Amino acid sequence: MTGQLCVLGLGPGDAALLTEQARQSIAGASDAFGYFPYVERLSGLEHLRLHASDNREELDRARQALNVAAEGRKVLMLSSGDPGVFAMASAVFEVLEGASPQEQLRWKAVEVDVQPGITAMLAAAARLGAPLGHDFCTINLSDNLKPAEVIERRIRLAAQADFAMAFYNPCSKSRPQGFVRALKVLTAHCEPERLICFARNVSRPDETLRVCQLQQVTPDMADMRTVVIVGNSLTRQVGRHVYTPRSYGAPAHG
Amino acid sequence: MTGQLCVLGLGPGDAALLTEQARQSIAGASDAFGYFPYVERLSGLEHLRLHASDNREELDRARQALNVAAEGRKVLMLSSGDPGVFAMASAVFEVLEGASPQEQLRWKAVEVDVQPGITAMLAAAARLGAPLGHDFCTINLSDNLKPAEVIERRIRLAAQADFAMAFYNPCSKSRPQGFVRALKVLTAHCEPERLICFARNVSRPDETLRVCQLQQVTPDMADMRTVVIVGNSLTRQVGRHVYTPRSYGAPAHG
Repeated sequence: MTGQLCVLGLGPGDAALLTEQARQSIAGASDAFGYFPYVERLSGLEHLRLHASDNREELDRARQALNVAAEGRKVLMLSSGDPGVFAMASAVFEVLEGASPQEQLRWKAVEVDVQPGITAMLAAAARLGAPLGHDFCTINLSDNLKPAEVIERRIRLAAQADFAMAFYNPCSKSRPQGFVRALKVLTAHCEPERLICFARNVSRPDETLRVCQLQQVTPDMADMRTVVIVGNSLTRQVGRHVYTPRSYGAPAHG
Repeated sequence: MTGQLCVLGLGPGDAALLTEQARQSIAGASDAFGYFPYVERLSGLEHLRLHASDNREELDRARQALNVAAEGRKVLMLSSGDPGVFAMASAVFEVLEGASPQEQLRWKAVEVDVQPGITAMLAAAARLGAPLGHDFCTINLSDNLKPAEVIERRIRLAAQADFAMAFYNPCSKSRPQGFVRALKVLTAHCEPERLICFARNVSRPDETLRVCQLQQVTPDMADMRTVVIVGNSLTRQVGRHVYTPRSYGAPAHG
């Protein structure tokens, strides 16, 4: 019996930012797995068996979802934003890769499908204007799964490349130092006037947006619900919007 | 009279990848501006006045759209994908920033709003698996608006940072050398087994996906309808999927 595991992005919060594809997948599913606040977003849907779990239980959650899908059910694995950006898609493939022979046999008939969603940095960028309108990079500041030195090195090289940057998971109660460290690297490599944007709870009723210069930034401006967008050296404000121009340096043609 | 300019992302092609927000904005608009293949996607909608224009006319298009919005109309500026990623949002803000005193007066009452969409790299990544599941960067390989040296330097620094990379506009008939140059930099800085993914016309009926090692890549694998995703040093295949693990090096905690 073929089962399905659909790894899905719910977008940043507002239901209007779901894709039609996601709506259809939710309508056709039998089960939904995910971190409890994401599962809660589907709590009104009586056709779904909901399986909520805690944060940091990604691998167990993926294993359980594959087991339920292997029973021939249509299972959703929920992420907020896009499932491929610091979310559940990689965790599912990690579990598939590390499957025991028994699990390989059990999961063989499960079709795994990833469906994109509006990731937090692009929702934040749209609300701000177009701060990611030129080359940029996307960095997870959490050091749960990589050394802090790797993060610092990447921010330094990104600043040298003059990428705009989007930071996910800038800090949390258990990791208060992530954004502080990033700020040190930025201060060493960017001019004090560099624009830094803080977008918290984007697309939700309590959304807040804040734009300031690097020299004005304090560590408390970011928390675990904030996406931080660092402009490149040309990023600027026009009216209430922040944007990064498409052009950079002397264009090759005209 | 207040007009509206809504800068909108239509997603990569499949109408099921539009957000509900985009559908509602299209339903409520009076006019739609954009590059002609994007405007064509709305050609069945009789309530819309369509204003199609050619590629490379972005600034003129933005000016015209603002002028029509200033008449009190509800105007869409269409991009494919997400409007903030190498698309029309930055062009609109460039025009607003460079407005003459007469234009400033005319456009003062226009509300400008950017609405996100599913950008090509995230649609491609979902189809492939999760190649952007760890830190990554996004680079436009077109040298229309920036020198080729800047692009090469950014790719080199991104390789040194061991970012996965997504390349937009790898080459076109008028710029055949963009991807060739990128390939030279990758070959100099990445191992020959590095996974490179080519996603062409993602989510359309003629979608093609191709994955190979860097040493097997030839320049003809990319064209202007292709997004190229370069894995980081840990990116690998599991079954038919490509993914980049969430972990990197020795984790700081457990």
